[in-house]
Amino acid sequence: MDEKKLEKKKKGGLSTESYKGVRDFYPEDMFVQNHIFEVMRYSAESFGFVEYGASLLEPTALYESKTGEEIVNEQTYTFTDRGGRSVTLRPEMTPTVARMVAAKRRELAFPLRWYSLPNVFRYERPQRGRLREHWQLNVDIFGAEGIPAEVEIIVCAYQTMLNFGAKETDFEIRLSYAGLLSAVLKDTLTLSDGDTKKLTRIIDSIGKVSDTDIRKRAEEILGKEKQVHFEKLIEGGNFDAHVAHRPEFKHAHEVMKTLRTIGIAETAITFEPFLVRGFDYYTGLIFEIFDTSAYNTRALFGGGRYDNLLDIFDSPTIPAVGFGMGDVTIRDFLETHDLIPSYESPTDLLLSTVDSQTVSYAQALAQRLRKEGIAVAVNLDDARVGSQLTVAGKQGIRFAICIGEREVATKKYTIKNLETKKETGLKENGIAEFIFNSEL
Amino acid sequence: MDEKKLEKKKKGGLSTESYKGVRDFYPEDMFVQNHIFEVMRYSAESFGFVEYGASLLEPTALYESKTGEEIVNEQTYTFTDRGGRSVTLRPEMTPTVARMVAAKRRELAFPLRWYSLPNVFRYERPQRGRLREHWQLNVDIFGAEGIPAEVEIIVCAYQTMLNFGAKETDFEIRLSYAGLLSAVLKDTLTLSDGDTKKLTRIIDSIGKVSDTDIRKRAEEILGKEKQVHFEKLIEGGNFDAHVAHRPEFKHAHEVMKTLRTIGIAETAITFEPFLVRGFDYYTGLIFEIFDTSAYNTRALFGGGRYDNLLDIFDSPTIPAVGFGMGDVTIRDFLETHDLIPSYESPTDLLLSTVDSQTVSYAQALAQRLRKEGIAVAVNLDDARVGSQLTVAGKQGIRFAICIGEREVATKKYTIKNLETKKETGLKENGIAEFIFNSEL
Repeated sequence: MDEKKLEKKKKGGLSTESYKGVRDFYPEDMFVQNHIFEVMRYSAESFGFVEYGASLLEPTALYESKTGEEIVNEQTYTFTDRGGRSVTLRPEMTPTVARMVAAKRRELAFPLRWYSLPNVFRYERPQRGRLREHWQLNVDIFGAEGIPAEVEIIVCAYQTMLNFGAKETDFEIRLSYAGLLSAVLKDTLTLSDGDTKKLTRIIDSIGKVSDTDIRKRAEEILGKEKQVHFEKLIEGGNFDAHVAHRPEFKHAHEVMKTLRTIGIAETAITFEPFLVRGFDYYTGLIFEIFDTSAYNTRALFGGGRYDNLLDIFDSPTIPAVGFGMGDVTIRDFLETHDLIPSYESPTDLLLSTVDSQTVSYAQALAQRLRKEGIAVAVNLDDARVGSQLTVAGKQGIRFAICIGEREVATKKYTIKNLETKKETGLKENGIAEFIFNSEL
Repeated sequence: MDEKKLEKKKKGGLSTESYKGVRDFYPEDMFVQNHIFEVMRYSAESFGFVEYGASLLEPTALYESKTGEEIVNEQTYTFTDRGGRSVTLRPEMTPTVARMVAAKRRELAFPLRWYSLPNVFRYERPQRGRLREHWQLNVDIFGAEGIPAEVEIIVCAYQTMLNFGAKETDFEIRLSYAGLLSAVLKDTLTLSDGDTKKLTRIIDSIGKVSDTDIRKRAEEILGKEKQVHFEKLIEGGNFDAHVAHRPEFKHAHEVMKTLRTIGIAETAITFEPFLVRGFDYYTGLIFEIFDTSAYNTRALFGGGRYDNLLDIFDSPTIPAVGFGMGDVTIRDFLETHDLIPSYESPTDLLLSTVDSQTVSYAQALAQRLRKEGIAVAVNLDDARVGSQLTVAGKQGIRFAICIGEREVATKKYTIKNLETKKETGLKENGIAEFIFNSEL
């Protein structure tokens, strides 16, 4: 790699590398990406969600309240445009959809079931599962309070996993309630709001950094005495005793019970009081989906209820609940569980040409076949027929017909299956049918 | 609008407006956008093109050579990231695809037929047909010299128009050859390279600004004497006499002849020596598609041959030809010609609920129906049934089944067509079939 770079530098040519932390999608990669988008789209639509979209450029002010502070200050792509406006590349979709709903709240027929497939941006060190640009299925219900909407969102997340080919036991669902962890920490350890917040972030990093590190960072905030108290509090099932009487706990368990009654049978559903979501706008039930393989201990994705986000637009309160599922973590999950489909070309047929005299004949034939619904590529250069078929095979095209003088004269063709090498004689009016039938 | 803004300011809430010059896509708009993407995708794939993609973030250096100067200097979104790198939001896709092809030129099986549907960005004053962000079908062939590849690209552009529902006479194709206009101007009027370039830009604005303006701007460059010569040169068919003997002219006419032989019958195909493309990288045949209605005199879209672009990466020369078709101008065209399809919801069925007791029953039923391929929304709040059906009707959902105590007890359902109001009695195992059949 370094040698290559050096070579380029010597010659003075531009680098062919993409910008750091983003991806180029060559056709094979794009095929996988489109598979992921299709499953996401199908899943959301099967639950009655309809698609919306927006630009990734947003006024920076949209992110200056209600979102996690860390994200606004250090992790966004923010710049000033030539007109002096501060612009941010959206780090997530929720503020955008809240803005759109608030803008047309008088015209829209609630409840809304909306989904989108936006790309979102974070300025952070690229690492496994974390890139500077990724795509994210966003699914949200606006205008429905209470448990049924929360259940619907979680079932949709669950079903999306199954639609990707995951088994029920490949993943689990963990639930909690926004603010519950903070409230218990604050009350039990008598902490300030600031220290409570710091401590929840430390708890969020359990399992991601070493226990020694956790202990050290907690002690910095709590001091020796409270640290002992804290360690006992989060040990084993001790914490549950502090929350079991609280309404948030009961609410979460009601959701868990309903998930079972409407058909989630084998997927583990657990109450996880240490669950922390990255954004501050959650107001109720929160959940995350985890891979059950030991391979990945981070959450795959999650969501929850955020009833007050529209208040920043001075809109009347509109209850909201949703989830966001990123393509990078899902792709890693699919790879781990061997669920990535193998590449299939969308091209049915190559019309190979013996010499340049027959190319325009082939182009006219291709036009007629396309009208019957066949995807046809035509050879356009002077390569030998053997080489044309080799390239077509590499590109995953399934059939080829070679057009030479004889074919032009007789209008009879030989179609070749590039995988099996089997050849079949056909007239023009049999080509489309032959290809359609071979797909069965 | 101003009153609304004032109201918001008074209250102190965040504005719900999007960033200037970009679009929010509410579900009805997204439906049209998806229709446009689907037609573009289908058209490209029916010609054997396969999809690729890339991030919109690119190193700025990618745009500092070979692209139109105007675009690099004044019209891009360029900023410095937190790591000190200069980043540009891609103003077009061609440099990106050239970068990707150059990066893997040793592994890729040429010729490549590639397409993409990227969004691209320009910092300019928003106006009809020109926004700061738009999407663009990019279709390119890499590794094929000569007329057949140029013909294939133009036929693909033509067929894409037909696939949108355009009649052959709704648009026309104009061809020329990169550098031909400049060469003739330079030779005939003995101009410097700089003045030649300025003059071609003035010619490009004929029909867009007033004739007086054109005359004034040309005189500034040419002086009185040459100006007279110039006006005669571009008058009527005079210019053609200066180009008829040139190989570029013959090449373009060969392309025009071939387009006729392979099936373009009624669409006007003309040689247009004053055609100027916005980028400097074109090296051969260029073309543009124009609306034949008087309504729109600007080009809808265009493309051409650019054989040397990969040289900037010190790659061996790889011949290339392609076109880019923007969603905004196409959407305007479709509106003008009444070719925008009306909204259809992807949701087949609403399960309406009489009270909160029946919601989880409905959710379980919905899950079973989804497994049969039906897109089902479930009512999630306490609204009255009449109001639930009104909202579903507004959202374009076609059928509803109301779930009450009786339905839970008898497992017999009444499905209502929300448009015709017709009701039909069904058992659970008849619902999916009923909906599928009603789509025929």
